Amino acid sequence: MKNQNYKPCDLVIYGALGDLSKRKLLISLYRLEKSNLLEADTRIIGVDRLEETSTGFIEIAHNSLTEHLNTPIDEEIWGRLSNRLSYLKIDLTQPEQYLQLNAAVDPEKRVMVNYFAVAPFLFKSICQGLQSCGVLTAESRMVMEKPIGHDLKSSKEINDVVEEVFHEDQVYRIDHYLGKETVLNLLALRFANSIFTTNWNHNTIDHIQITVGEDIGIEGRWEYFDKTGQLRDMLQNHLLQILTFVAMEPPADLEAESIHMEKIKVLKALRPITVRNVEEKTVRGQYTAGFIKGAAVPGYLEEEGANKESTTESFVAIRVDIDNWRWAGVPFYMRTGKRMPNKRTEIVVNFKQLPHNIFKDSFRDLPANKLVIHLQPNEGVDVVMLNKVPGIDGNIKLQQTKLDLSFSETFKKNSIFGGYEKLILEALRGNTTLFLSREEIEQAWAWVDSIQDAWAQNHSAPKSYPAGSWGPIASVALLARDGRAWEE
Amino acid sequence: MKNQNYKPCDLVIYGALGDLSKRKLLISLYRLEKSNLLEADTRIIGVDRLEETSTGFIEIAHNSLTEHLNTPIDEEIWGRLSNRLSYLKIDLTQPEQYLQLNAAVDPEKRVMVNYFAVAPFLFKSICQGLQSCGVLTAESRMVMEKPIGHDLKSSKEINDVVEEVFHEDQVYRIDHYLGKETVLNLLALRFANSIFTTNWNHNTIDHIQITVGEDIGIEGRWEYFDKTGQLRDMLQNHLLQILTFVAMEPPADLEAESIHMEKIKVLKALRPITVRNVEEKTVRGQYTAGFIKGAAVPGYLEEEGANKESTTESFVAIRVDIDNWRWAGVPFYMRTGKRMPNKRTEIVVNFKQLPHNIFKDSFRDLPANKLVIHLQPNEGVDVVMLNKVPGIDGNIKLQQTKLDLSFSETFKKNSIFGGYEKLILEALRGNTTLFLSREEIEQAWAWVDSIQDAWAQNHSAPKSYPAGSWGPIASVALLARDGRAWEE
Repeated sequence: MKNQNYKPCDLVIYGALGDLSKRKLLISLYRLEKSNLLEADTRIIGVDRLEETSTGFIEIAHNSLTEHLNTPIDEEIWGRLSNRLSYLKIDLTQPEQYLQLNAAVDPEKRVMVNYFAVAPFLFKSICQGLQSCGVLTAESRMVMEKPIGHDLKSSKEINDVVEEVFHEDQVYRIDHYLGKETVLNLLALRFANSIFTTNWNHNTIDHIQITVGEDIGIEGRWEYFDKTGQLRDMLQNHLLQILTFVAMEPPADLEAESIHMEKIKVLKALRPITVRNVEEKTVRGQYTAGFIKGAAVPGYLEEEGANKESTTESFVAIRVDIDNWRWAGVPFYMRTGKRMPNKRTEIVVNFKQLPHNIFKDSFRDLPANKLVIHLQPNEGVDVVMLNKVPGIDGNIKLQQTKLDLSFSETFKKNSIFGGYEKLILEALRGNTTLFLSREEIEQAWAWVDSIQDAWAQNHSAPKSYPAGSWGPIASVALLARDGRAWEE
Repeated sequence: MKNQNYKPCDLVIYGALGDLSKRKLLISLYRLEKSNLLEADTRIIGVDRLEETSTGFIEIAHNSLTEHLNTPIDEEIWGRLSNRLSYLKIDLTQPEQYLQLNAAVDPEKRVMVNYFAVAPFLFKSICQGLQSCGVLTAESRMVMEKPIGHDLKSSKEINDVVEEVFHEDQVYRIDHYLGKETVLNLLALRFANSIFTTNWNHNTIDHIQITVGEDIGIEGRWEYFDKTGQLRDMLQNHLLQILTFVAMEPPADLEAESIHMEKIKVLKALRPITVRNVEEKTVRGQYTAGFIKGAAVPGYLEEEGANKESTTESFVAIRVDIDNWRWAGVPFYMRTGKRMPNKRTEIVVNFKQLPHNIFKDSFRDLPANKLVIHLQPNEGVDVVMLNKVPGIDGNIKLQQTKLDLSFSETFKKNSIFGGYEKLILEALRGNTTLFLSREEIEQAWAWVDSIQDAWAQNHSAPKSYPAGSWGPIASVALLARDGRAWEE
C-alpha cells in the first residue's frame, strides 16, 4: 500500500443519498480505493435524512457504482471500500440528532472531514449541529462546492455561517476544474520551462482565449439555472479560476498561501466592467432550437419548465483586461455556453506576430505561434508553430504544424484521474493549495456582480444563437473589433 | 509539368564517369526528372577523358541508377532523362578539345551550367578550355564542391583560377548539408516563430551543441583522408555552415546577398583559437579497433594503406565562442568523428536553467528546456520540456517530455529530397542563396588554419578512442570543465 502518508480520516458526507454523492463522490472514492490511495483506517460515514441502514447505504452505493462507473466493479476493491461505509439518519435541521456522530467518529484517532454535499441553506444547521454535539476539533475540516452564493452578498452569508465554526484554514472550497491535470500542468508549463516563462507577458503575448463549451442544454434544472445564468454558473468560478492560473505572477513556492495570494492579486487587477462599458465588453446569448450532432434540440425557452419571458443568458463572452504590469494591453477573452457544437474546454495563448516577415511568399501575414491547452474532451498541450514544408520548390514554403503532447498518449502508464478524485484526496491529506480561499471567491463575485448589475441597469436582453453554434454573432464581433478571432 | 519557371540549361558534368557523378549527380537528376522539376529543354552533357559514346554513357548511367537508386527504375522517367543525355570525350588538359562543346551547347537558348565533378587541380584547365572555346556568356555558371582547398592559401588559389573566368555571382559552391530540409527549416524555426525568435540569444540560451557523427571509417581513401583530417574534411565546411545558420542575425530578407552577409558576420566573429588556447578549446581523437553495431572494425592505423605513424585526427571536438552581442557568453560545442556508434547529425539548443525552482520535490535542479534539431538519420525537431506527470500524488511531479515534429511523419505527402537534388535544382534555377560565397569559405579556412597551425606548433597528437564510442574522454572533459555534458 502506497501513499498513505496522511492521518486517517472520518469522511462524513452530508447528503450522502443525493446526486452529487452518488454520481461523483462515491465513484471517486472507489477510484481512490482502487489506487490504494485511501488510508487503511479511513472511514466514510453517509449522512442523510432518509430512513436507511448501513447495509442499505452500502447497497445504494453499489448500485451507484454499477450505474456510473464505466468499468465493471472489482469485487476485491469494492470489498475494501464497502468495509469503510456506514450510514447515519440525521435530519440536518435537528441539532440533537447530530449527537449520533459522537459514536461514529473518533477525533483523536482520525481527522473529521465534513463534506457538505447539500444545498447552502442547510449549511447553518450543519455547522450548528456539529458545534453543539462537540465532535469538532481544530483539525476538523469542511468541504463545500459551488454554488457558494449567487452573488457577493449571499456568498458572504454562507462563508460567515461556516466561519463561525470553521477557521479559514479548515475550509476546503472545491472547484473541480482545479483538479484537472492540464490546469495543474499549467504550473509546470509556466514555471518549469524557460521557453514559456520568458515569453509569458505583454512583450510576446498578443491575447489569451478561454473557452468552456458544453453541448448539454438545461436538462431538468431549468428553474435553478434560470435564476443563475451562465455568467454566475460557469464563468464566476471555472473560467475565472482558469484565468488566475494562466495569469498569476510566479509564486515563490507551491504552498497554498503563496498560490492563493497570487490568484487574489489577479482577481483584484481585473478591470471592472460597469454600465459604462458593459455593452462593448460583454455578449449575452440564449440558445434557440437547433441541432447538436445531427439531433434536433429545443431552444432555451422551450425546455421543460421554461418561462417564455426569461432573459437569462445561456452563453456569455467577455473581454477582460488585467490592469497590472505583466498583462497591460493583453486582453483575455472568455466564453462559455450551453448547447455549443461539442464539449470543449481549452486555453489558447496567442503569441504576437513577428514584427518583420521574410517569408512573404508563404504568408503575407505570418500566423503567430500559439500554445493550446486542451482540458476537454481530451487533456493535452499543442504548440502551433511554423515549419518549412519539405520540398525543393524555389521559395521556402512554410506551413503551420503542431507539436503536440497528448496526456493520455504520452503518459499511458498513468491513469488520468478526474478533478474530484484529486480534490477529495487533497482534502483528506489536508492540503488547501487547490481549493479556493474566501477572498478569491469574494473578489470573483464582486467583479461578476458588477457585470450582472450593469446588464440589469441596461435591461440588456440576450442575443439568440441556434443550438449547435458557438454563440451569437456578437461574440464573433467582440473579437473582430479588436482584429482578432476565436480559435476555430 | 510544374515548376519549370526557369530558363532551360545545358548542364555539363566534367568527370561524368567519376564517382561523384555516378553515385550522386545522376541519381539526383533522375529524382528531379521524376518530380517533373527538370525544364523540358534542359540537356545534360557528360564530359570525361575516356573513349565513350553517348549510347555508352546512357548505358553507364542506367547501370549507376540500377546500383545506387533504392527503388526500381521507372522506364518512363528514365526515357525522359536518357533523352537529355549525351557524352563528349574531352581530355580536360587539352584546350583544343573543348571546341567540341560549341556543337553541344547553345548559350542563346540555354544557360550553360558547368559542374566541376573533378579534382581541383583540373579546374584551371577547364576554365581555360572553356574560355578559349568561346562558349561562356555572362549567364553561364560553374558548380564546385569540397574540397575547395585544404587551407586558406590553396582555397584562394582555386578561387583565383575560377575567378579569372567566372564572376563571383556565377559561382555555385556546394555544401550538401545546406540542401537538407532541417537546415533550411532552421530559417523557419528561427525567423517565423516568436517563441524561438524572442528566445534566441544569450539571455535565454545556455549553450549550443552541433554533432556530426559518422559510423563509417576511412574506407579505401586512407591516403587522401590522412592528409586532410576530420577538422578540414568535415568541420571547416559542414559544421561551420550549420553553425552559421544557427547563429546568424536575422537577415532582412532571403536574398542570397543578405544571407551570405549574415553568415560572413558570424564567421568573422568566431574567437580565434591559437597556440595559447588550443589545448583547452579543442580535442583531437584517433580511433583504435573496436566494435560498430556488434561487428569488429580495425583502428585508424590498421586500415588498408595506413601509415602507422600518422597523427591525423579522425575526431575533433571544439569549443567555439562567438564574439558578438547575441552570443556573448554562449559557447558552441562542435564535435565530429568517424567510427562513432552510429550515424547521427544534430543540433541541440540548450536553454538556460530557470533562476528559481518551485518544483524541488521533482528535481533538485530543474532540467533546462532543449530544442533538438535532427538532421540524420531522420530529419525532425524536438522540443524537450517539463510537464506534470498525471497523477494525484501530493506533490506536483514533473517529467521531461518531448514535443516532436518528425518531418517524414508530419509531411507524409511530401517526399523528402536529399541535399544534392535541392542544390542541383537551385543551380539550374540560378539561385545562389544556399551556396557558399568565396568570402565565407575563406573566413572559415582562416579560422581553421589557426587551429591546425596551433596543433602543429604544439606537436599535438590525437587521443585515442575505441571505434564505436563518442570520441576520447577528453571530449567529455571539454564540456565537463564548463559544467556541461554532451547530449546523450
